Amino acid sequence: MREITGFSNPLVKQVRSLRDKKHRRAEGKFLAEGLRILTEALDAAVAPEMLWRTPDSAGHPLVQRLEAAAGETFVTSADILSKLSGKDNPGSVVGVFAEFPTPLEALDRGKADIWIVAQALRDPGNLGTILRTGDAVGAGGLILIDDCTDPFSVEAVRASMGAIFTQSVSMARWPEFMAWLRSGPGQLVGTSLNTTTDYQAARYDAPTFILVGNEAQGLPADYEAACDLLVKMPMRGKADSLNAAVATAVMAYEVLNQRRRSGGLERYA
Amino acid sequence: MREITGFSNPLVKQVRSLRDKKHRRAEGKFLAEGLRILTEALDAAVAPEMLWRTPDSAGHPLVQRLEAAAGETFVTSADILSKLSGKDNPGSVVGVFAEFPTPLEALDRGKADIWIVAQALRDPGNLGTILRTGDAVGAGGLILIDDCTDPFSVEAVRASMGAIFTQSVSMARWPEFMAWLRSGPGQLVGTSLNTTTDYQAARYDAPTFILVGNEAQGLPADYEAACDLLVKMPMRGKADSLNAAVATAVMAYEVLNQRRRSGGLERYA
Repeated sequence: MREITGFSNPLVKQVRSLRDKKHRRAEGKFLAEGLRILTEALDAAVAPEMLWRTPDSAGHPLVQRLEAAAGETFVTSADILSKLSGKDNPGSVVGVFAEFPTPLEALDRGKADIWIVAQALRDPGNLGTILRTGDAVGAGGLILIDDCTDPFSVEAVRASMGAIFTQSVSMARWPEFMAWLRSGPGQLVGTSLNTTTDYQAARYDAPTFILVGNEAQGLPADYEAACDLLVKMPMRGKADSLNAAVATAVMAYEVLNQRRRSGGLERYA
Repeated sequence: MREITGFSNPLVKQVRSLRDKKHRRAEGKFLAEGLRILTEALDAAVAPEMLWRTPDSAGHPLVQRLEAAAGETFVTSADILSKLSGKDNPGSVVGVFAEFPTPLEALDRGKADIWIVAQALRDPGNLGTILRTGDAVGAGGLILIDDCTDPFSVEAVRASMGAIFTQSVSMARWPEFMAWLRSGPGQLVGTSLNTTTDYQAARYDAPTFILVGNEAQGLPADYEAACDLLVKMPMRGKADSLNAAVATAVMAYEVLNQRRRSGGLERYA
């Protein structure tokens, strides 16, 4: 355990730099903050390489558990913790973790009946919320297509509420993803305005890959054309679309509900 | 039409101050930005008191339509527009609108089968997303209980994607809300972890009031006790809760789906 008191300490500067994607990629590390999220990490058998905590958190049993698991612990002020995470009130702990994206070819598509695929998703809150929903519906993981916002940003990790540690995260270009998808079983289901198929009228087969598009543009036409199925949700108001994380959740719960009714999804060849 | 070129113009300062809740309340006005959202406002027959636009947007048909409807138009630089909205890229228009919360007693509960009630909601993105979902499911409006984040903040308005103009918004304390609710028909349905009733096993009667709690704490115990029905969504992962806007949407679509199946919800006395 080391005590760090100065804002100008080089280690503070280095950890703080992990708020930038460029530095995360260069170092292969990312930040997570708050007892709840760090405990989720431990429960998923992921320990922080560094644990930063305030002096007064020493007696907390969860902090002690984290400290026992962490590579190294640093005791510092609440102000410095805020500086590390960029949040006014980051709670009593900040952790530095190794990034662990899963290469597509290492994904075990048989481990879950639902997978979520997001294309050019730009909002870190949406991305984190989709991870959190993925965890809730028992999805296998999230596959990010094209230029998505970074799943390891502080904002995305925060919105995931720890699901960044329980869901597989893969990143791929579209042709690479399609080649992988078609190399095994899987039904690709796009949410789209360009269909008349109601999302409750369709039958989902396992594993179902739910494909959601960019917040502003939706899915490109050729991506929609490559789907096995396009569905849409009823829209009863003035607007023609839902928030991307909301649309993903409504779809994912429909797939889960069909599975609950049938006692399992049909396998899709 | 007036041209405004200086950052120090008192009108710029005054409009910019509407980013603070204190000033919004004092002036009874709020900001909305972007062509898409301002067009939603017009479509809902709500015109901006002031329209701020960039010079190069003059030829755009939607801008012309907005300008014809606006109380007054100001032409200014993109930099000043950014300063007004606090967003790097606010698009080509910013509007100043009169706040229009609806008093509880003025709500017509018979106009819709679904209403959303949020308690101590803190995140403006969640609030705006819930408004957007409300519009999508044909809800009548959003009732905010206790200390919620301001629905007229720039962030909430942005996340609503214009639904702030199509959904009724009311604000009330809990006892006041309950007195109003019980003065007429309505089923109060809380989403909760403290029940074994699956959200798909319950029957929803119209009008259904979906009650969602604070992001971190959920609903207070006595609020849950006052509900006609508590339901929970299946959670298949490590976490025990969904994002508040996601939970609201999954619930709201279930109510809508039951209504679609039955050709209408049963009236609830």
